[in-house]
Amino acid sequence: MSGFVDNRVTQLLGIEVPVIQGGMIYNSGAKLAAAVANAGGLGLVGAGSMRPDLFRDQIRKARTLTERPFGVNIPLLYPHSADCVEIALAEGVRIFFTSAGSPRRVAGPLKEADCVLVHVVASPVLARKCEDAGCDAVVCEGFEAGGHNGRDEITTMVLVPECVAAVEIPVIAAGGIATGQQMAAALALGAESVQIGSRFAVSAESSGHDKFKQAVVDAAAGDTRLVLKAQVPVRLLRNAFRDRIMDMERLGATAEELAAELGQGRARAGMLDGDLAEGELEIGQVAGLIDDIPPVAAIMTRLLDDYRTTVARLAGTQ
Amino acid sequence: MSGFVDNRVTQLLGIEVPVIQGGMIYNSGAKLAAAVANAGGLGLVGAGSMRPDLFRDQIRKARTLTERPFGVNIPLLYPHSADCVEIALAEGVRIFFTSAGSPRRVAGPLKEADCVLVHVVASPVLARKCEDAGCDAVVCEGFEAGGHNGRDEITTMVLVPECVAAVEIPVIAAGGIATGQQMAAALALGAESVQIGSRFAVSAESSGHDKFKQAVVDAAAGDTRLVLKAQVPVRLLRNAFRDRIMDMERLGATAEELAAELGQGRARAGMLDGDLAEGELEIGQVAGLIDDIPPVAAIMTRLLDDYRTTVARLAGTQ
Repeated sequence: MSGFVDNRVTQLLGIEVPVIQGGMIYNSGAKLAAAVANAGGLGLVGAGSMRPDLFRDQIRKARTLTERPFGVNIPLLYPHSADCVEIALAEGVRIFFTSAGSPRRVAGPLKEADCVLVHVVASPVLARKCEDAGCDAVVCEGFEAGGHNGRDEITTMVLVPECVAAVEIPVIAAGGIATGQQMAAALALGAESVQIGSRFAVSAESSGHDKFKQAVVDAAAGDTRLVLKAQVPVRLLRNAFRDRIMDMERLGATAEELAAELGQGRARAGMLDGDLAEGELEIGQVAGLIDDIPPVAAIMTRLLDDYRTTVARLAGTQ
Repeated sequence: MSGFVDNRVTQLLGIEVPVIQGGMIYNSGAKLAAAVANAGGLGLVGAGSMRPDLFRDQIRKARTLTERPFGVNIPLLYPHSADCVEIALAEGVRIFFTSAGSPRRVAGPLKEADCVLVHVVASPVLARKCEDAGCDAVVCEGFEAGGHNGRDEITTMVLVPECVAAVEIPVIAAGGIATGQQMAAALALGAESVQIGSRFAVSAESSGHDKFKQAVVDAAAGDTRLVLKAQVPVRLLRNAFRDRIMDMERLGATAEELAAELGQGRARAGMLDGDLAEGELEIGQVAGLIDDIPPVAAIMTRLLDDYRTTVARLAGTQ
């Protein structure tokens, strides 16, 4: 009894409230996905940082934690991406969010298996390609989002209406959404649902390291920056590692030099092992608005209360 | 009879609808300011690209074109900024929007003269400084805005709630706002008014060159980029000049090399003289959503109609 009127996205995904938890490496395991599902939204087990065996285990674990539908998020640029798609299908998952790479690669088998396919994009041109490829919806993720990001730097405020105008399929807004006010803004822009990353990363059920969560709580506005644009752009929280990368970029470092400095395993070091100085700390610009580490149920209650208050406030402007 | 309920910003500025036209060099002269005033919003004569004599003439001309209140926008970083403040005071202007530099410089004389003072900021830290300096409101301008821009790259979606939380004075949202959907989003985020630049720059009454306006109409999402971050960051539409600057920045050009390439008079060349290849074409990311060059009255009608439709749609979500 969420009080939300069904729309195309809630019907497509079989959820009560139009809130989707983003796939986030080292943060979105079974516990987080199940908690979001139990709170009425769509939880996603994120394959991005998992080997296929662990991914299978997490899908199975999520099933023991919720009776509601949940989905998976699979970035399509890894060598084992195809394996992850097969595993999820075999495990009975019917909701697939994909990102990076082209959804064309997987659309055939997924549509044959009657699955829902949603791809994450950062431009209206790519949104149209997803529609042509047979996607059921697109997540339009703005420049302010954490983690890996588009090259065009289009913000959520502009990207969402651009994509709504570009495609017939429903648009899900992502990037800069952690509060009910921001959720109302996203729906005002024409999105039919929101995908929330950072706010759910900093929850009791996220699998990120406590030190990482606390670093986000301590962060202020302006503490994140999009870096490594010559490689795969990624939004990171300020630390010693990121400051070095920004200095190198300012001085015109080559892609090879930046790759060497980046090395291997920094995302795991930062977000799973809690190395706040030398790890990659992927988080959105909304970090400055995140001040606590509550359970998902409390986040959802606050989000929907603030959404309702905001909509009522807007109705009172005229 | 706008149908809008008064709020702190409409009362402060004596306007019917919570829409403010931003000061934009080479675009915001008397005709634009008066047209916005006549449509129920707040028009601003922008001093940024005017010598003091021209600025005085434009204030006088605006008075002949409207009986409603209008204001001025004065960037505080030019040698003649203080002259412009004096001129506007002498001409009886009582609404001052300032940007760049500190509002402390002008707050004393303006408050003594019972003027309204609003400063443009790009971070909550600066919003708080404005409040301490005695400003009556702040314009919070996100990363997606055209022209000169903040260094923290905080988008409107995040900046507005950050600033609403940081200060007691009213917040006006700017950056990425050209439609009624975006206006509703900005008010959902807690702003009490919007400041609109690009959409009014591409109007019949703007003083920009027709070729410049047409270039914006022709632009697609992702065609603007924030460049010259080592100098004063500015968002520009793609052209030969901007591409060279981006190449130089990628290769680690020094501030001196970039300044030499920039040279003098490029903003005038681009926006007033219509040199689309070598001029600076300052415009926001919303360029992709701007598809025509209508009069201000039509822009305002469409904006408010879409705002009302959006608020009604949101009310129907639950």
